[in-house]
Amino acid sequence: MTRFLTLTLSACAALGVAASAVADGHSNLDLEGAVKSRKSVMTLVSYHTGVLGDMAKGEAPYDAEIAVAAAENLAAAASMNRVVLYPAGTEQGAIAGSRAKAEIWSDPTGYDQAATTLQVAATDMVVAAGTDLEALRGAMGAVGSTCRACHEAYRGPRN
Amino acid sequence: MTRFLTLTLSACAALGVAASAVADGHSNLDLEGAVKSRKSVMTLVSYHTGVLGDMAKGEAPYDAEIAVAAAENLAAAASMNRVVLYPAGTEQGAIAGSRAKAEIWSDPTGYDQAATTLQVAATDMVVAAGTDLEALRGAMGAVGSTCRACHEAYRGPRN
Repeated sequence: MTRFLTLTLSACAALGVAASAVADGHSNLDLEGAVKSRKSVMTLVSYHTGVLGDMAKGEAPYDAEIAVAAAENLAAAASMNRVVLYPAGTEQGAIAGSRAKAEIWSDPTGYDQAATTLQVAATDMVVAAGTDLEALRGAMGAVGSTCRACHEAYRGPRN
Repeated sequence: MTRFLTLTLSACAALGVAASAVADGHSNLDLEGAVKSRKSVMTLVSYHTGVLGDMAKGEAPYDAEIAVAAAENLAAAASMNRVVLYPAGTEQGAIAGSRAKAEIWSDPTGYDQAATTLQVAATDMVVAAGTDLEALRGAMGAVGSTCRACHEAYRGPRN
């Protein structure tokens, strides 16, 4: 682990935005706002992963500044504290628009692990994206497989 | 400035997600995706500010865990690297749905200052939100005034 990566992970811890259990006893949150906000996090993950993916596939020229920015924003989105984004009562079926499986609440440790895996992949990508195109390509697989694994386990079917 | 705040600001710097100029010469980005992603950042800012505001107004009970989480996510949203979110050609009038004034590109220093002001207010809020309701209320004004000032200077009329 490079010093930068160590620093970056420490940074997440200092910000307190690392993995944390989903909410279970907080009943005064705006549930529709929480669902909309989760979708916003996913939009940000998708957009920034797409920017990196386009470079990896050669569909956009490699640009270190843009690639690092995209990886940083991916890491920031992945680091969002979930206690305020996943209040009880926002699983699929309980509220319109949600595709969050009940397993997010019944298996919070597993979900936290999945989220942490994306944080680590994104943090690795910050370093790789600033190195060169080959390094970016090498880091892309971990980002993509993390997305797929989490969606399979914790995202329900289309509403 | 408390040690925690210093650490937190250092954390932002270590993550590289602190203020940075908007993009001007990157032409291969998904412009619609950038606009959608900026709206997602605003959704996240609005939701988490609302969670804190509800507590400040007494419309929701003070809950330190939720308040800190909301402030952390507000800080993460405010820290997003703008080089990939504000590509040239995404100002209001140039692309559907954008309310980003041309001043964001013509006055990048001013815009960076406005964004940094929100980062600082959000970082202060992380500390305040974990202290008590009175501290949270005290930190709320800076968050609200930052939102208003930036919207007045850099957000165009409704489309």
